[in-house]
Amino acid sequence: MASGVAEVRNKQVIFGDYVTGYAKESDLKLTTTTTKLKLPEGSTGLLVKNLYLSCDPYMRGRMSKNGTLSYVETFKPGTPVVGLGVAKVLESGDPKFKPGDLVSGQTGWEEYSVITTEFLIKIHHIDHVPLSYHIGVLGMPGMTAYAGFYEVCCPKKGETVYISAASGAVGQLVGQFAKLTGCYVVGSAGSKEKVDLLKNKFGFDEAFNYKEEPDMDAALRRYFPDGIDIYFENVGGKMLDAVLPNMRLKGRIAVCGMISQYNQLERPEGIHNLMSLIVKQVRMEGFRVFSYYHLYGKFLETMLPYIKEGKITYVEDVLEGLENAPAALMGLFAGRNVGKQVVLVSRE
Amino acid sequence: MASGVAEVRNKQVIFGDYVTGYAKESDLKLTTTTTKLKLPEGSTGLLVKNLYLSCDPYMRGRMSKNGTLSYVETFKPGTPVVGLGVAKVLESGDPKFKPGDLVSGQTGWEEYSVITTEFLIKIHHIDHVPLSYHIGVLGMPGMTAYAGFYEVCCPKKGETVYISAASGAVGQLVGQFAKLTGCYVVGSAGSKEKVDLLKNKFGFDEAFNYKEEPDMDAALRRYFPDGIDIYFENVGGKMLDAVLPNMRLKGRIAVCGMISQYNQLERPEGIHNLMSLIVKQVRMEGFRVFSYYHLYGKFLETMLPYIKEGKITYVEDVLEGLENAPAALMGLFAGRNVGKQVVLVSRE
Repeated sequence: MASGVAEVRNKQVIFGDYVTGYAKESDLKLTTTTTKLKLPEGSTGLLVKNLYLSCDPYMRGRMSKNGTLSYVETFKPGTPVVGLGVAKVLESGDPKFKPGDLVSGQTGWEEYSVITTEFLIKIHHIDHVPLSYHIGVLGMPGMTAYAGFYEVCCPKKGETVYISAASGAVGQLVGQFAKLTGCYVVGSAGSKEKVDLLKNKFGFDEAFNYKEEPDMDAALRRYFPDGIDIYFENVGGKMLDAVLPNMRLKGRIAVCGMISQYNQLERPEGIHNLMSLIVKQVRMEGFRVFSYYHLYGKFLETMLPYIKEGKITYVEDVLEGLENAPAALMGLFAGRNVGKQVVLVSRE
Repeated sequence: MASGVAEVRNKQVIFGDYVTGYAKESDLKLTTTTTKLKLPEGSTGLLVKNLYLSCDPYMRGRMSKNGTLSYVETFKPGTPVVGLGVAKVLESGDPKFKPGDLVSGQTGWEEYSVITTEFLIKIHHIDHVPLSYHIGVLGMPGMTAYAGFYEVCCPKKGETVYISAASGAVGQLVGQFAKLTGCYVVGSAGSKEKVDLLKNKFGFDEAFNYKEEPDMDAALRRYFPDGIDIYFENVGGKMLDAVLPNMRLKGRIAVCGMISQYNQLERPEGIHNLMSLIVKQVRMEGFRVFSYYHLYGKFLETMLPYIKEGKITYVEDVLEGLENAPAALMGLFAGRNVGKQVVLVSRE
């Protein structure tokens, strides 16, 4: 029965089953199916072709049955991984979108998806920025850095700022925002290449490879002899414990993530130095970017000129091919990515 | 040579030496000396007779050589313990004070002291409040509860509030402030007597004996099925770890103290559940009352009528005799005190 609807190959990355401890590439399975290029009857969503997919640390939380560590619902075993992406609209059941539109938002790890339009952003301003930026510097990581630094850290000119995982999707931006604010900025990362990026490309005042520091407390005292006003927390664990006693009076810790803890088998490492919160009167605040999207317009107004004028630069690690997506995601937890990890599914 | 200056007995509590791990009564030694009732030539301080001395948990920090846990300088081995107290001025080298004045502030654990007038408060309004209240509900613990609850917790009517060490010098006031604000208030303490006080004297909605709860998480879920908006942290350790996953979205934790950790031999217990700060977007803020003394006038204006009208009640545990001061201080860490621990040195 010829229906007149094209049927196409649809490669997918399927979530196997809930994970305890270290997630592995094999927890995600590549499969190939076919799909009809047609929205289901009565759908108010969109049929899209996925172009770029975003690999983000929070996705590890969606792989655990125990949702405590996750901010959003878990993946469903046997179905494609879901995450943020940039996609092209093929068919629309929502009058606000039309075929050919480019969108960023939640989509599936597959070539073609049917997605809802809730929280979806229509992409404009594509003249001077790469499409992938819409899941990076102009997307969730960008908003995370912006809200976390300006809204949670309340920075002042002249303050000292320390950023862990500083060359990552969020960290590299926090450092540049801090420099634009007139702060002294130090970042840590896990390789010489990343440390070089921090100093030479992102303009950090200092940077160091945390893997080469046998005594983290000594390292922090070396870079911050008078203490840390603002700590942008991306890693948790021993790093946090070393930072706490090095905070200055009335310091602020924005807790963005704790990537070192996401694959812990039993439970996260214990943090021993919280007494420093009292001694130094420190505010430690967890945040989720989703609470700050009312600032998205202001954020774009700030970022687009910054990017155009070269005041903000952004490094992406683009891996080509959906079949490489599992390795790309797992690479985050091993620190293999240099900059924002993106998977290129299709150029158009 | 008759100098015309009276020489009197001066009982003292002497700090022995720096302590590691559990402090004991024997770390403080009672001695009797004599002192001349005369200010040293040219002194700008006061010669005082001590009436009431305050026992406060933070004093344990002053007994450790490593000052990390202490907010103020350590005690000096071989000299009298110093702490807050109420005293009567016998001789003054400062024109702002005259003999007969009553003052509250830093003094020595002895019968007679020479003290500086810096940060000293002259006591007025003694008509309807006991003198000891000036080191309790109207003193540092009162200010701590006031600043910690109103300034750090930012409470709103209808919110849920949990207080650990709730019958203590600070906790009993936080609970009453929370009730006056229109919050649902639950406190924990370590004996039936204290739990009864919380419910029947201080008007907490619920209270429980933490020593009788084998599963603290289950206990908190029982009293806070929809979670905790505000946690007033006095104890640290396992209690904090149990509270964290029970916090509500945008909850606040005011870190006032961590008494369960002050006598730890090696280092404080590890806290494992800080990921909850991100998941629930919780603000956890350490504070020290000394940063809030600009509010002291407003505090007194609020508290004096509250006390007069019976809207705020205060329970003290008054132990008579300087010789009992070491036991009184150590009792704090064993939870022997019921309410604010005070030592009565002399009635006048």
